[in-house]
Amino acid sequence: MAVCPKTLSRSIPLASPERARSFDMMADLSDFSEDAKAITGWMKSWFDSSLGPAEQLKSAMGYSALSGGKRLRGGLVLACRRLAATQSGRSEGDGLALAAAVEMLHAYSLIHDDLPAMDDADLRRGQPSAHLAYDEATAILAGDALQTAAFQLLADPAHHPDAGVRAGMVLALAEASGLGGMAGGQMLDLQAEAGGFDLSAMQEMQDLKTGALIRAACRIGGLSAHADDRLLNQLDSYACHLGLAFQIADDLLDIQGDAGKTGKPGGQDQARGKATFVDFLGVDGAAGEAARLAGAARETLLDYGESAAALLALADFVTHRDH
Amino acid sequence: MAVCPKTLSRSIPLASPERARSFDMMADLSDFSEDAKAITGWMKSWFDSSLGPAEQLKSAMGYSALSGGKRLRGGLVLACRRLAATQSGRSEGDGLALAAAVEMLHAYSLIHDDLPAMDDADLRRGQPSAHLAYDEATAILAGDALQTAAFQLLADPAHHPDAGVRAGMVLALAEASGLGGMAGGQMLDLQAEAGGFDLSAMQEMQDLKTGALIRAACRIGGLSAHADDRLLNQLDSYACHLGLAFQIADDLLDIQGDAGKTGKPGGQDQARGKATFVDFLGVDGAAGEAARLAGAARETLLDYGESAAALLALADFVTHRDH
Repeated sequence: MAVCPKTLSRSIPLASPERARSFDMMADLSDFSEDAKAITGWMKSWFDSSLGPAEQLKSAMGYSALSGGKRLRGGLVLACRRLAATQSGRSEGDGLALAAAVEMLHAYSLIHDDLPAMDDADLRRGQPSAHLAYDEATAILAGDALQTAAFQLLADPAHHPDAGVRAGMVLALAEASGLGGMAGGQMLDLQAEAGGFDLSAMQEMQDLKTGALIRAACRIGGLSAHADDRLLNQLDSYACHLGLAFQIADDLLDIQGDAGKTGKPGGQDQARGKATFVDFLGVDGAAGEAARLAGAARETLLDYGESAAALLALADFVTHRDH
Repeated sequence: MAVCPKTLSRSIPLASPERARSFDMMADLSDFSEDAKAITGWMKSWFDSSLGPAEQLKSAMGYSALSGGKRLRGGLVLACRRLAATQSGRSEGDGLALAAAVEMLHAYSLIHDDLPAMDDADLRRGQPSAHLAYDEATAILAGDALQTAAFQLLADPAHHPDAGVRAGMVLALAEASGLGGMAGGQMLDLQAEAGGFDLSAMQEMQDLKTGALIRAACRIGGLSAHADDRLLNQLDSYACHLGLAFQIADDLLDIQGDAGKTGKPGGQDQARGKATFVDFLGVDGAAGEAARLAGAARETLLDYGESAAALLALADFVTHRDH
């Protein structure tokens, strides 16, 4: 997977105010809210129908995957899929299993990030972390098995009839999640607690740790509805900008937010001495950068008009999550 | 994935002595030794060429995946692939990436099994466990990223030209590794330390924890060379019997072996109060059962004669690993 362009602190022209206001954000965002419910419902059915003697493991997987969560990544799968379908005229099935796969991969990463040996976080999505609700061994295994389930869902012919698409989705998710993606980013993040980052190194870390999976979500959505290379590249550019805007907004929330909104205690990153974008850019600078990146994400897809309305609305919403 | 037949303590006719002796075990096993070297070499090249900023993570992945190990599972991929190729006349590439994928999945499971929250093992393949050689967070991430790498390798068109085969291999590995396979088995194994098994429950746990990946290795080998359903079923029966024979032999080794042969201290399972097949069957009974199962594994493939010689030799070897 090619790295994201160095988007930070580079001047990207924003959309004109007229174009930027050409959609109804709240109306278009309702798609994401509906999708989130449908994805969670699909996952619940999957857990209910998954047989096997390891009940405690299944319980812990469901505890983490089904609770809370905005389903941003799964929602991106479905929204990018719908946009691609308007181009290709093809979108087999409803895509919920593919969205669920990306959410399960994300849930695995949260469980493992929260472990005592990692971030040692007690609270996740407003409830005790998996290793506290169960135990550490069960939490490790639940994360492991959620990762496996993600690939199982994407490779299953029940969820997409085209083997080339299935293999392509598996490859996209794997490249985003492993050594050259999310896991690599988490490693760099852990190492930085001792050392420290400059702004460029922190963007690289965030691109890997958070951005890569957001890009994979958009790519999987596009692939599943047979997007052509041009649209796949546009979705990737959208995802690169959105991912970084999201991370900067997350850093702002960590300072400004409270546990009731974020599902985790405020100031966690600062308490651990972790550098955030706010440290480098200041609160106003970070907010401005997030807004600029969200605008650049929108700009990528503006030409698709109504077909891209949900994705355009999301780019705005990401930088206004505390409202 | 359907469960293995309940093979234990059921009378399966053994091959006649004449048929059983119709191959030169040591000559045929040399394939496995050569394959093991080639698989390790392939993995080493893969790690050398894998770019990315997370050097410590890559180092820990290689530390665990490249050290020691008999490459039984990777060897099964290649041996089953060769047998299938004699039937189908088709086997694109050399299969090393596919064998490496299964070995990386296995290496991930070893790293996580050894963690303090799991089996808390200090020694693996004759060297300090990953969490001691590095640290616990790095070990967790190395296991995570090795699992991801396994799926990435299987889904990559560079390693097999047929997308249907690639997606099928991913599905086989995922079904064998997750909630309904290896991770589920490890969960049951951990829970049993408190409670206890009867013989049937222990076989079920071992079928999941160890057998499922051995079956996936054989299936992946068969799929990669376009085995027909009849041969895939025969390979699965071979793998079911071989996997259980292997596990019983492992329990015997744990009692009789020493760290120099097994790479881990003897008596580990007993020291943790874990039930083993030897507890239920006694030393002689377990040895007899392992030999009987190995014979049944051989019987499944005897009709293929020389094409299956390596797999036949392996079935015998598994029950004689301490010689």
